[in-house]
Amino acid sequence: MAADLLFGKMISKHRVNLAITAGATPQKTYELLVEKVKQKSYLKHVHYYNFDEVPFLNQEAHDGVTMTCLKNLYFTPAGIPAQQIHPLTASNYQTHDARLLADGGLDAIFIGIGADGHFCGNLPQTTHFQDETVAVDVTSRPDMADILKNEMVKAGVSDHFQDETVAVDVTSRPDMADILKNEMVKAGVSEDLACDYYVTMGPKSVMAAQQVILMAIGEAKAKIVKQALFGEVRQAVPASILQLHPNLLVLLDEAAAREIMS
Amino acid sequence: MAADLLFGKMISKHRVNLAITAGATPQKTYELLVEKVKQKSYLKHVHYYNFDEVPFLNQEAHDGVTMTCLKNLYFTPAGIPAQQIHPLTASNYQTHDARLLADGGLDAIFIGIGADGHFCGNLPQTTHFQDETVAVDVTSRPDMADILKNEMVKAGVSDHFQDETVAVDVTSRPDMADILKNEMVKAGVSEDLACDYYVTMGPKSVMAAQQVILMAIGEAKAKIVKQALFGEVRQAVPASILQLHPNLLVLLDEAAAREIMS
Amino acid sequence: MAADLLFGKMISKHRVNLAITAGATPQKTYELLVEKVKQKSYLKHVHYYNFDEVPFLNQEAHDGVTMTCLKNLYFTPAGIPAQQIHPLTASNYQTHDARLLADGGLDAIFIGIGADGHFCGNLPQTTHFQDETVAVDVTSRPDMADILKNEMVKAGVSDHFQDETVAVDVTSRPDMADILKNEMVKAGVSEDLACDYYVTMGPKSVMAAQQVILMAIGEAKAKIVKQALFGEVRQAVPASILQLHPNLLVLLDEAAAREIMS
Amino acid sequence: MAADLLFGKMISKHRVNLAITAGATPQKTYELLVEKVKQKSYLKHVHYYNFDEVPFLNQEAHDGVTMTCLKNLYFTPAGIPAQQIHPLTASNYQTHDARLLADGGLDAIFIGIGADGHFCGNLPQTTHFQDETVAVDVTSRPDMADILKNEMVKAGVSDHFQDETVAVDVTSRPDMADILKNEMVKAGVSEDLACDYYVTMGPKSVMAAQQVILMAIGEAKAKIVKQALFGEVRQAVPASILQLHPNLLVLLDEAAAREIMS
Repeated sequence: MAADLLFGKMISKHRVNLAITAGATPQKTYELLVEKVKQKSYLKHVHYYNFDEVPFLNQEAHDGVTMTCLKNLYFTPAGIPAQQIHPLTASNYQTHDARLLADGGLDAIFIGIGADGHFCGNLPQTTHFQDETVAVDVTSRPDMADILKNEMVKAGVSDHFQDETVAVDVTSRPDMADILKNEMVKAGVSEDLACDYYVTMGPKSVMAAQQVILMAIGEAKAKIVKQALFGEVRQAVPASILQLHPNLLVLLDEAAAREIMS
Repeated sequence: MAADLLFGKMISKHRVNLAITAGATPQKTYELLVEKVKQKSYLKHVHYYNFDEVPFLNQEAHDGVTMTCLKNLYFTPAGIPAQQIHPLTASNYQTHDARLLADGGLDAIFIGIGADGHFCGNLPQTTHFQDETVAVDVTSRPDMADILKNEMVKAGVSDHFQDETVAVDVTSRPDMADILKNEMVKAGVSEDLACDYYVTMGPKSVMAAQQVILMAIGEAKAKIVKQALFGEVRQAVPASILQLHPNLLVLLDEAAAREIMS
Repeated sequence: MAADLLFGKMISKHRVNLAITAGATPQKTYELLVEKVKQKSYLKHVHYYNFDEVPFLNQEAHDGVTMTCLKNLYFTPAGIPAQQIHPLTASNYQTHDARLLADGGLDAIFIGIGADGHFCGNLPQTTHFQDETVAVDVTSRPDMADILKNEMVKAGVSDHFQDETVAVDVTSRPDMADILKNEMVKAGVSEDLACDYYVTMGPKSVMAAQQVILMAIGEAKAKIVKQALFGEVRQAVPASILQLHPNLLVLLDEAAAREIMS
Repeated sequence: MAADLLFGKMISKHRVNLAITAGATPQKTYELLVEKVKQKSYLKHVHYYNFDEVPFLNQEAHDGVTMTCLKNLYFTPAGIPAQQIHPLTASNYQTHDARLLADGGLDAIFIGIGADGHFCGNLPQTTHFQDETVAVDVTSRPDMADILKNEMVKAGVSDHFQDETVAVDVTSRPDMADILKNEMVKAGVSEDLACDYYVTMGPKSVMAAQQVILMAIGEAKAKIVKQALFGEVRQAVPASILQLHPNLLVLLDEAAAREIMS
């Protein structure tokens, strides 16, 4: 359904601007979407944006974690031309909101939700509801260094050990992060592939989109989905602000909807 | 894709108004759509309209050919509540346009195209580009009596001999109309099931929708599709006017697109 | 400009739904708007809603403070037919949000802002960001009884002492509330004209409108305008949530914009 | 009202694309609009297009009649920066439609109507309903040379003899064209200032705009207004096609509306 709805957004005579999520949740969506959009010349008016980026240290000119993942999952297999992809990077984040407005604004932003209530890079204690696109650094939270390392590990894996039939999940075992890191080292992923900050569209930037499409899959999201969508709107649950968007579309599988239905 | 796109239109917080086509072309679409919408209480804001109707003679209070077909194909299997269905009938056609505007206008109209270039009941020589919803009677064209009889035959068939796996097509053999009529008589379909006029949204009413979704399937449509969409805009090809809608979406299978691609 | 923009919203072939503010701020707007809309039969598709109401005690079937004021300022001089006015009342507030969605949602909501950061009836400490249309009673804040009394006084005045050329403002002198109350008593406004609660569209309901038009006039609003539109988004400043609406339009005179410009 | 409505279109967070008319009809509109928009930095997301152009002979790199007029009437007094003005010229007309779509499409096109039913450069016998932006040359109609000459005369006048208080109208006297031409010659307007073709957005391009705003002023337009808006849709009355736009807004003064009201 997510693939169908995203494809429906693309059908237009005019320019369409979409910001889309990387990560594990939308893998199946992109797999189906690739079939619909590849080699479709009539979709050349569809423009893509990422809404956050974790840049590799001292590599600001190159793709970061998010863009690497988006290319693997979607842009490359779908054959999206470079001129339709507008990266948000460590270098241009301060003009990202102005660029979006000049481009006509986002028609839709397709996002996931974290078990801690984060959306995009808006983790609890990192951004505020009134923030537009900002940089969040390693000092924002005591555990931010670990969070960033995990992102690197996941990115390294998807980059170097991509496997079409197995989705490797860093949370599948307590020691998976270490296992994966070892794999990275063995694969020659240099220590340089570290990062100490990321950039993200803040809540205000996300809310400015014409439509917000939020997808959650699996039982691990059931609790936060209920809390974010039916609970109190507060900074400690960043995604709770999305309740107030006039055009919010939520896509859940049965497991993720369990707490709502009960 | 048609089912996906129609379903995408329905996803909204607000009331959504759709006019949808009966006939053979969308059978597969509705089959898929029924699976998506049935028992979905969150779609109770979706309102349905038919855009034409062939009333049975002296039976203006009852369902005509179009509504009978739409119920068979979609409304009944999808379990759409009566309060979300707003029939256009022989009795109310003169206030149909005003009702649509008061209801907020059509968000989309889903239509087919005939090999003669007709859309809805806008056959060549029956309506004009500037017409809103009108009645077209048996005297409008020399062959209108036959056209109406055919509609009855098709409706009688779908009503009485419906078969989930076989789509009976009146055009499949030169003598199929007669065969079917015999079947109707055998089945006790009375001679009263005749009609001598129909009502239809005219080109002006159709063009007033926010989006026009035109679907054509099969090689028999290839020629008219090219003529209507890329040829001269003129009354003799009623569907040629649809070129000028600011938000026209055309869905073709390969066969129907053959003349365009060559 | 406010009158022009509201009039522009009304120009449509289809139904248009507007929620509009009562109070002192929009008096001039309505004066100009009345000239534009009165006796315009082509505006019969424009439907009006109030977004809050202070009901008179034991008079729930009758107009409350807000509707009385809107009739005086706009509906009556503009000659808006009753079937285009959809009152929010103490009796129907629990179904107000569902009604709005069934009617197609609000195309725009035209609101003011209080010096304390309130909008509609969302005073600090009364509602929460996640609230839809709710009732707020006299126990919600220690000073709510006084607030409600003031509303009554203002309503009594506008009802009984309306003067086309002078806008009487309860804040113009410290003792104006008492003066006005005396006038009410002299005018025979019975003690029954009290109230102990009100109903209001909550932040979530307001944010669901397609557009939010916020107007502020005068130096007394300069501070809160800056705080609400450029400060932290937090419950203590209810209007701060409006920053996050994707389609917010703010209309300020020079005095109200002073803090922003400096 | 036209100035108010156009200004209302400009109020947006996002890019807004407007195509606007030159000519005598909108002079007062632009006069009022200039007051509203000049030195308003918050309108820098508003982009302007012309919808036709009469290029001076062998001067294709320079402004033609339309752009000269638009600059005089609006762009220059309003101080619109060059980067917000996107000229349609003899050199780029073949990519004009593609550029508009890439830019997000026109949010509105503001046009007039000629006594012969033309709109933009769509004079009877020059373009067809299905035409996008095209070039029309001197051979398209027997009287096209004269038509083009008249345009030059009007342009020459507005260029060289502009007078803020007097609008010189080439139709005011039978010999006015000759008088003005003499004036041009006296003023040193070289023979080079001739032209033998023009470019114009065709009916299909105009219909692709999200909204069409048609303005007509004066008794000379009363007959064609009724014919175009309430008569038959046919090529001989090009503006009759505008009836079929889903979002047409017509602005008339009393004189231009006389035939409709009677």
